[in-house]
Amino acid sequence: MAEEPAPVRPLAYGGEHQVRPLPFDPASLTGLSEKLITSHHQNNYAGAVKRLNLIQQQIGTLPKDAAPYQVGSLKREELIATNSMLLHEAYFANLGGKGPATGAFAALAKTAYGSLDTWEQDFRLTGQSLAGGSGWVIVAYDRETKSLHNWWAFDHTHGVAAGIPVLVMDMYEHSYQMDYGANAKGYIDAFFQNVRWDEVNKRLDHLRAE
Amino acid sequence: MAEEPAPVRPLAYGGEHQVRPLPFDPASLTGLSEKLITSHHQNNYAGAVKRLNLIQQQIGTLPKDAAPYQVGSLKREELIATNSMLLHEAYFANLGGKGPATGAFAALAKTAYGSLDTWEQDFRLTGQSLAGGSGWVIVAYDRETKSLHNWWAFDHTHGVAAGIPVLVMDMYEHSYQMDYGANAKGYIDAFFQNVRWDEVNKRLDHLRAE
Amino acid sequence: MAEEPAPVRPLAYGGEHQVRPLPFDPASLTGLSEKLITSHHQNNYAGAVKRLNLIQQQIGTLPKDAAPYQVGSLKREELIATNSMLLHEAYFANLGGKGPATGAFAALAKTAYGSLDTWEQDFRLTGQSLAGGSGWVIVAYDRETKSLHNWWAFDHTHGVAAGIPVLVMDMYEHSYQMDYGANAKGYIDAFFQNVRWDEVNKRLDHLRAE
Amino acid sequence: MAEEPAPVRPLAYGGEHQVRPLPFDPASLTGLSEKLITSHHQNNYAGAVKRLNLIQQQIGTLPKDAAPYQVGSLKREELIATNSMLLHEAYFANLGGKGPATGAFAALAKTAYGSLDTWEQDFRLTGQSLAGGSGWVIVAYDRETKSLHNWWAFDHTHGVAAGIPVLVMDMYEHSYQMDYGANAKGYIDAFFQNVRWDEVNKRLDHLRAE
Repeated sequence: MAEEPAPVRPLAYGGEHQVRPLPFDPASLTGLSEKLITSHHQNNYAGAVKRLNLIQQQIGTLPKDAAPYQVGSLKREELIATNSMLLHEAYFANLGGKGPATGAFAALAKTAYGSLDTWEQDFRLTGQSLAGGSGWVIVAYDRETKSLHNWWAFDHTHGVAAGIPVLVMDMYEHSYQMDYGANAKGYIDAFFQNVRWDEVNKRLDHLRAE
Repeated sequence: MAEEPAPVRPLAYGGEHQVRPLPFDPASLTGLSEKLITSHHQNNYAGAVKRLNLIQQQIGTLPKDAAPYQVGSLKREELIATNSMLLHEAYFANLGGKGPATGAFAALAKTAYGSLDTWEQDFRLTGQSLAGGSGWVIVAYDRETKSLHNWWAFDHTHGVAAGIPVLVMDMYEHSYQMDYGANAKGYIDAFFQNVRWDEVNKRLDHLRAE
Repeated sequence: MAEEPAPVRPLAYGGEHQVRPLPFDPASLTGLSEKLITSHHQNNYAGAVKRLNLIQQQIGTLPKDAAPYQVGSLKREELIATNSMLLHEAYFANLGGKGPATGAFAALAKTAYGSLDTWEQDFRLTGQSLAGGSGWVIVAYDRETKSLHNWWAFDHTHGVAAGIPVLVMDMYEHSYQMDYGANAKGYIDAFFQNVRWDEVNKRLDHLRAE
Repeated sequence: MAEEPAPVRPLAYGGEHQVRPLPFDPASLTGLSEKLITSHHQNNYAGAVKRLNLIQQQIGTLPKDAAPYQVGSLKREELIATNSMLLHEAYFANLGGKGPATGAFAALAKTAYGSLDTWEQDFRLTGQSLAGGSGWVIVAYDRETKSLHNWWAFDHTHGVAAGIPVLVMDMYEHSYQMDYGANAKGYIDAFFQNVRWDEVNKRLDHLRAE
């Protein structure tokens, strides 16, 4: 008698996630070296994408009688790798520019924080609170309240339930140690010199479209 | 000499969040007692809303030279309380119904997981992996991929960077201990008897509208 | 040719951990019901012991080429289940008594916090900060500094690197929801009515012996 | 009328923790540069010590009616800074040597894992599971079971409830990014070339003394 065919792996766990190339010339940033950016992209980001494919394949083939802890532990790994993939993609895509915040972002930041300076101060302090470890600073736009807010994330698993990231800054030490050592403040300064505000505003426009 | 006026509290930290009433009669659910639902709403949900107001007030009045750890520790509390508020609101709003999944949700779950049964099995196992502690099971809809996915959250801080919750199940023990003791499976059964699928589908329609 | 015998499972992962019986009559506590204590012991504690055996068996049989994320995710589960086992054992063993703190513990608490009242206030506030979720309050004795300190633990994974628990209070909601609902303060009051200070002092004597 | 004297800061929060100097010449290690070691010691370790003093001072002066979330958030910071201090001190003190594991440690590792090679493989894989983020690998000796075990720690807050660290490896990216970029395996190789086994064995002797 013929064996049952392998079950179709549910689509939710079957996407072959692809590594996206860097959207800018890694040698073109101000204060962030080609070596750092290339290592960050090839190792930390691409590693997360490849790992996510393995994790989702493993979840998709768990036996029906898997112990709950097996499911939970792999789903935690899935969340870590998924957010690492998504946030790194958002991070690289919001680099490669220059100049001060403009347009819709600047207006919304002023509405939320009173002034663009206050917003930036809050963003920078959140970043410095993560120095020496891991984490992200995430500016998320919430379609319901039509506002943005700076969120602290201590590692890849953290995120606000409402809102989609429009500007993110990686605070994992692999984002700066090679160039800045423990000088996270120097890295944050460099980050602000390279933000691609037109991309950030495109995200906002996309999210605000009805 | 006159003292400086108090700085205007940035709007991002100034919202007076209001407690929303239960959107259904707490005595009307199947297998979840009025006492449990009322305590959950009044203590755990409303407590988070009130705490969030205090936390944001404290952040909004931090001195400019606050140590980064002070900012980070309060922003962590802000994330905990914010997600607790948002997820509890989504949870109560997706209770008060009955019957099997229908409409757009059922179709998207089938697309993502191969069948509605497979989706439900994955959702239930994720819930059981959180039994005896804290956490949420979150089905998030991602406008970019036009798909939904079940996410594991070990506490209020966890969430996927892409996607907005459309169906959530609270797995903190305050969701079931009063009625079910350690029998998380019994609670998950009860949860499925009370899902308000029309609300879930309304969320999806809202998110899918362009 | 004969197959290789199964490799001897390393002792580090081979202990068959045994469930310890409750060291007191579960109907004998003040303000903590037999039903609550029995469920806590049989489900949350005993469940952790059984799960730990499964997890360590799975780690012990991981293939040599296991992906690092597989090792890490199981080791996280091992830490969760190990600390759940150890802390629950310490918790049940420090219940079943009554009266105020005495002996070496009272003296060390006074040395560390200025007065026994200040120690108790700090311990209680730490407990209340965990209300509505998970966690432990852990008083650990550090043999190097010959002092004790109250530590916050947000879930089973947290612990201080120096010091061994001598008094612990479970703040997971399964410790009180059945009897107290969301009234964590009522539970903390009950906890203090049942501490077995002679056991706590025996632990201290044991740790302080040279 | 005279003002109240400042309250005596409870001893538990009053220790002025002192930065310990590096116990070896930072230029003397194999495969770990002076620049890396000096930055690690001056910034990450010394920074934690100084921050801990600030945090404990802040906790010691919290008003009696502090909100529980204020206590909890500061106690979390205290746990992070305390373990960062303690584990960094253990880390630097177990570097500066060379050669293979010897003495009591080698014997106990063999007892626990079947062979020294199996122990080392488990330790290395645990380290690699933390690559690209934060964490520690902690070998703890448990006086009760008279055995040692490798523990995974995802950040400074994690630790086993029983057992005291005798050998630790820092896996925060600040431990290797400057010298090895994303090559965590290269760092782990270097770590093993510099372990000061006589110090590790001294710790074991100290812990095993009755």
